[in-house]
Amino acid sequence: MTNALASWNPGPARKAIEDFVARVTTPGEAGFVPEAERIAVFDNDGTLWSEQPAYFQLLFAMDRVRAMAADHPEWENQQPFKGVLEGDFEAVVKTGKAGLFELMMTTHSGMTTTEFEDIVQEWVSSARHPQLDRLYTDLVFQPMLEVLDYLRANGFKTFIVSGGGIEFMRPWVDEVYGIPREQVIGSTITVAFEIRDGAPVLVRLPEIDFIDDKEGKPIAIHKFIGRRPIAAFGNSDGDLQMLQWTAAGSGPSLVVLVHHTDADREWAYDRDSHIGRLDAALDEASEKNWLIVDMKRDWRTIYPAATR
Amino acid sequence: MTNALASWNPGPARKAIEDFVARVTTPGEAGFVPEAERIAVFDNDGTLWSEQPAYFQLLFAMDRVRAMAADHPEWENQQPFKGVLEGDFEAVVKTGKAGLFELMMTTHSGMTTTEFEDIVQEWVSSARHPQLDRLYTDLVFQPMLEVLDYLRANGFKTFIVSGGGIEFMRPWVDEVYGIPREQVIGSTITVAFEIRDGAPVLVRLPEIDFIDDKEGKPIAIHKFIGRRPIAAFGNSDGDLQMLQWTAAGSGPSLVVLVHHTDADREWAYDRDSHIGRLDAALDEASEKNWLIVDMKRDWRTIYPAATR
Repeated sequence: MTNALASWNPGPARKAIEDFVARVTTPGEAGFVPEAERIAVFDNDGTLWSEQPAYFQLLFAMDRVRAMAADHPEWENQQPFKGVLEGDFEAVVKTGKAGLFELMMTTHSGMTTTEFEDIVQEWVSSARHPQLDRLYTDLVFQPMLEVLDYLRANGFKTFIVSGGGIEFMRPWVDEVYGIPREQVIGSTITVAFEIRDGAPVLVRLPEIDFIDDKEGKPIAIHKFIGRRPIAAFGNSDGDLQMLQWTAAGSGPSLVVLVHHTDADREWAYDRDSHIGRLDAALDEASEKNWLIVDMKRDWRTIYPAATR
Repeated sequence: MTNALASWNPGPARKAIEDFVARVTTPGEAGFVPEAERIAVFDNDGTLWSEQPAYFQLLFAMDRVRAMAADHPEWENQQPFKGVLEGDFEAVVKTGKAGLFELMMTTHSGMTTTEFEDIVQEWVSSARHPQLDRLYTDLVFQPMLEVLDYLRANGFKTFIVSGGGIEFMRPWVDEVYGIPREQVIGSTITVAFEIRDGAPVLVRLPEIDFIDDKEGKPIAIHKFIGRRPIAAFGNSDGDLQMLQWTAAGSGPSLVVLVHHTDADREWAYDRDSHIGRLDAALDEASEKNWLIVDMKRDWRTIYPAATR
């Protein structure tokens, strides 16, 4: 047993991860995989950090609405903005997909990529989770940080493959997860190349380019990486196709679902949740003997120490 | 002067590359760039390998038509296939963009990604250039191979950013250029995720997903890498926006055009060429003092020794 996974309780989950790594890294063994092919992919929301009471990127969008409200007096009478400003989330939810789309596009477009990065950076370094009163980046899972380090120490290249926005993650994932920007895959909005005052800029448009969810995940993995992963970690039905794609490789694979079972230390939810719904993937994981991590049972610690 | 660039004649081009590398890699110097930010991007056709008498991927498509013709008797009377089968390239060219599109889609879609990779691999390891009678992968530029190695030895991460198909390049670029698959950016066709006989596959559809050319290059660099390169190498107007985007960084940058000036050892073409047209970018390079590599003057050798 390695000390690398110190926040994992001894048991089948920890053992399965350690056995897999031993198997693919031992030269001469049947399951040996050359370093260049040791690709591990990780969903972000609910897999590397929490996602309750809503995806953190949605909480970011709502914070942005509050920050931008002074320039938008019309929002006082206009949903979904009114609901955000009044803290009436039922009203926001009632606006449905169209309202959510407007909320996201209004807060995520209309600026250059450089300007957006500064906005994200500022938010990530100051905004605090409404219930847990921590920086969002302090709500990452300590056991998963250890898995990331452990895999990299064993020659793996670690990638994020998230339904969240690629540009919402890139400014901070290197510092928080040790994953460089070029190893982040996610949803994208369309950007346009423009020359402004003689200098080129990329402008974010209010238009979806690609949704990196469900079938989108293996498609994006193929497009960005061009290799099939040998390890994949997810936590919801949105990760199912990525897990199937990984499991279908010709060699050994480690296919993992993080199951949110700890209502005391984090949250407990699965089949009936609106966020991170885990239903079909849970059935398929049982059926195919993928590794199901039970947070309550398997994780000694949930979060790292708060940085401030 | 380093020996790393042995196929470069001593002179201003070689010196500019060496000086840039010294500048960004010397700790404490004003121009120092941390390793994680040493991103170098390379166009492929005409920059890393030749592109005459036509883009090699088009020659591949024509070879595929010949290979597939037995199953398509109707092609005997149908352009652009008829022209390919009869070696009548004027007839092919006459079919215009629509004909070219049909030629590419017919030969590049309708199979799984795995099947397509096998087809490319087989072609690359056996097809020979019609005039030079060499494997296409023996028509890469020796001086550029040295630049790739030299940059990597100095902590750079090297990426391809090509108008060519991402899946046409990935099977062989690691062996030929030392560039891993996940550092290849290019044009893509749409793929669909399907479950066939219980196993997931990605199927290539006859539909353009993204053209990685002109404005598409900085857009794709931003999407795939998420960092602005500090070095960029191109050879045509299709690379102009990538070069502008690189030059606009806040620190030092190396912005390079490979100018095809050697009709004896390779080809000579620029402003009037249908392939690799270099016109606006040549003007802008002169105006902004970007490095213009004169193949005839600057390169001692063009190609490496043929492998067979």
